[in-house]
Amino acid sequence: MPSFPGRHTQHLLGLQGMTPDQIEPLLDLAESYALLNRSRKVSRDVLRGRTLINLFFEDSTRTRTSFELAGKRLGADVINMSVAQSSVNKGETLLDTAATLNAMQADLLVVRHAQSGAPALLAQKVEACVVNAGDGTHEHPTQALLDALTIRRHCGHLAGLTVAICGDVAHSRVARSDIHLLTTMGSRVRVVGPPTLVPNALRHLGVEVFHTMEEGLKDVDVVIMLRLQRERMSAGLIPSAREYFRFYGLDNRRLALAKPNALVMHPGPMNRGVEIDSQVADSDQSVIQEQVEMGVAVRMAVLDRLTRSRHSA
Amino acid sequence: MPSFPGRHTQHLLGLQGMTPDQIEPLLDLAESYALLNRSRKVSRDVLRGRTLINLFFEDSTRTRTSFELAGKRLGADVINMSVAQSSVNKGETLLDTAATLNAMQADLLVVRHAQSGAPALLAQKVEACVVNAGDGTHEHPTQALLDALTIRRHCGHLAGLTVAICGDVAHSRVARSDIHLLTTMGSRVRVVGPPTLVPNALRHLGVEVFHTMEEGLKDVDVVIMLRLQRERMSAGLIPSAREYFRFYGLDNRRLALAKPNALVMHPGPMNRGVEIDSQVADSDQSVIQEQVEMGVAVRMAVLDRLTRSRHSA
Amino acid sequence: MPSFPGRHTQHLLGLQGMTPDQIEPLLDLAESYALLNRSRKVSRDVLRGRTLINLFFEDSTRTRTSFELAGKRLGADVINMSVAQSSVNKGETLLDTAATLNAMQADLLVVRHAQSGAPALLAQKVEACVVNAGDGTHEHPTQALLDALTIRRHCGHLAGLTVAICGDVAHSRVARSDIHLLTTMGSRVRVVGPPTLVPNALRHLGVEVFHTMEEGLKDVDVVIMLRLQRERMSAGLIPSAREYFRFYGLDNRRLALAKPNALVMHPGPMNRGVEIDSQVADSDQSVIQEQVEMGVAVRMAVLDRLTRSRHSA
Repeated sequence: MPSFPGRHTQHLLGLQGMTPDQIEPLLDLAESYALLNRSRKVSRDVLRGRTLINLFFEDSTRTRTSFELAGKRLGADVINMSVAQSSVNKGETLLDTAATLNAMQADLLVVRHAQSGAPALLAQKVEACVVNAGDGTHEHPTQALLDALTIRRHCGHLAGLTVAICGDVAHSRVARSDIHLLTTMGSRVRVVGPPTLVPNALRHLGVEVFHTMEEGLKDVDVVIMLRLQRERMSAGLIPSAREYFRFYGLDNRRLALAKPNALVMHPGPMNRGVEIDSQVADSDQSVIQEQVEMGVAVRMAVLDRLTRSRHSA
Repeated sequence: MPSFPGRHTQHLLGLQGMTPDQIEPLLDLAESYALLNRSRKVSRDVLRGRTLINLFFEDSTRTRTSFELAGKRLGADVINMSVAQSSVNKGETLLDTAATLNAMQADLLVVRHAQSGAPALLAQKVEACVVNAGDGTHEHPTQALLDALTIRRHCGHLAGLTVAICGDVAHSRVARSDIHLLTTMGSRVRVVGPPTLVPNALRHLGVEVFHTMEEGLKDVDVVIMLRLQRERMSAGLIPSAREYFRFYGLDNRRLALAKPNALVMHPGPMNRGVEIDSQVADSDQSVIQEQVEMGVAVRMAVLDRLTRSRHSA
Repeated sequence: MPSFPGRHTQHLLGLQGMTPDQIEPLLDLAESYALLNRSRKVSRDVLRGRTLINLFFEDSTRTRTSFELAGKRLGADVINMSVAQSSVNKGETLLDTAATLNAMQADLLVVRHAQSGAPALLAQKVEACVVNAGDGTHEHPTQALLDALTIRRHCGHLAGLTVAICGDVAHSRVARSDIHLLTTMGSRVRVVGPPTLVPNALRHLGVEVFHTMEEGLKDVDVVIMLRLQRERMSAGLIPSAREYFRFYGLDNRRLALAKPNALVMHPGPMNRGVEIDSQVADSDQSVIQEQVEMGVAVRMAVLDRLTRSRHSA
């Protein structure tokens, strides 16, 4: 029963346009994998004899490792290819690289690329299922799915919640996927940050825009802090890390403006003392480690679902 | 039934000196693995409990990945070692590295090295089966085997075919292995390129030498285009990539000189617009992706055969 | 039956403080794995479904490969993370990295780090079993265990033997772990080298200090040569590699001072002609390759024991 519409049947390129009917079962499946992971009882049969290739044109040990673990736990043969080693350096085009991996009978291609749309381009050329592991400023769908699952585990549901996404929203594929997913599931989403990083134009995504943490965090159920890319400073978008923390860092005082027991989230790796205070990061309200755990489970669910869809199609 | 003579019983160091009786069964076995790969039905028992170490002193993601997949699909434990990480950088000798891997009970050592003869040197010192994955300008036997298999699948046989190998033949281990294999199997081999890259002295290998594509491609059954190493330009052996393409690039006009439906091959990665035109690379006559697919199958056959020979010896 | 006391129940951070009752069964188990490795008959069930992460903040292909093989042969899912790729480079703290891996449900964390004590710090924060794969100048416990196993196989016992450890003892975690283990098992340990690398203060470790090879090697049963770190020269601790060899290199003439058939050992990779002469390294008395073989077996025993201890606890 293929549950992703159109080209989504075989690939996971983004969350924009997906419906709650498609998302809920995926979160349910991920939740069941989370339990199996804890008891070390995952069946190797799900992807036995299948080949997963991690094709990373940008470094991301964290995401790559999460997909690698997800694939191996399900029994796949997992191959890591980082661009530094790849023949892309020898002048080969992206599409030739994809065609090569396809010819090696890859079943799943997990792609991270600095260019928005690169995974979608590949998906048109290969028989493998393509999973977007982050492309430019476009989407990072598995990150949003793991965020949603983590929230759902704590709040029981997503509809009706108010979620603040704080930081460099304009350049963040995590924020973009979170916004698509959370608004689809009925959450109210706020974006919070300085006008250089959170322009008012973001309203077209269906979110509320705030330029102070004090207003933005008021009575929210969930705070998602984004990682501050150091490059933003050299680009002059923010004055300094210290200034940034002073106005937009999450500390206990600001967190107190949110609802009692509001969840604190971060996609990692954290810049402690820049976008988030250590006390908050390590507090009882922080579910940052649980996000990592759900990350593996969500990726297992995605790999499982895509390969099943394809073969029952 | 060990089918490689002498030291070939245990290792695959080169194709020079092998006979059709040794090559045909290997291609047959590879062909059966190609079918099993398509149906995802390879038995993990062939190399279960065996250790394959990819020891690459030169980068080659493509070849390394192909061997990694071949090993994993047959059930081996596969370890990748690239020289950048290895203790070779700490001053350890090549032979000490080999002795170390041998002591770890590697069953298969897949070796790529910039020095011709390095794999043969290692083979004298280790109990593991050594597979040459490309050494200097000497040989790249699995590439030639996959080329031969691809041709055989399309033409039904190798004997009597005319095959043109075009480009930097003098420095190419691929060309050298192709020449040994194809002439052994009864093909007529032509080498085509400028005199700096295709000297007349190559005739001693039993090939015909041509210095224009127009003469060299006339009525051939197969065109193998070699990758142009950019280093050749800085060495002054060719004037520029643009000049090169003008005289020695494969485009539709030149391909029309070959037999109708002549096969177009390339070991990859391609320099589109340098040695090969995109229209040709992506045409129906191109079997370049099939070469990649046969590459995995051929390597599975080699790994299977070598370990069987050894243990039945 | 957890056999490591206190915090050692779950981790292997160092050998200091361990008793013969804890060490002997580990060597016995390693010996049995050495036999299984030779016959390629290791059961994949020991670590099936378990995750081992190699977390290397310093390069060491040799040790990393040994742990990777050990984990894979026992059936674990093995993930390699080297610091060059990791988000540590993005400013993440060591403890956040550890927390992330823990959240991914790593069962075993094999850690190499330039800072003494880093693995112990991690061990306090994670549920995974932590194995120290070398930390600063502190300990390298699996190296000492493999040294002890190699000696025991040749001499039948460790008690009463005289062992000379020669070279840069002061900065060597290998020497430190060897000293703890061998003295605990009843060997007499000598340390030999120039005063800059072997200060008299080492006596507090319960060893005899010698500053000439001629005195230090006299009548010993075992000679362990340490690797000379090239950095020692730039630091002015030794004049030159040539001078070093002249005074402290192991050659046949010096080896003749030891007992007949004394064992020659080296943790690798060797600097031939610097700390050891090639004739000695390749002689019948050298058990350097056997050390590598025992290394895989010892690591299998450690991984097996730690996960069993934990789950029976």
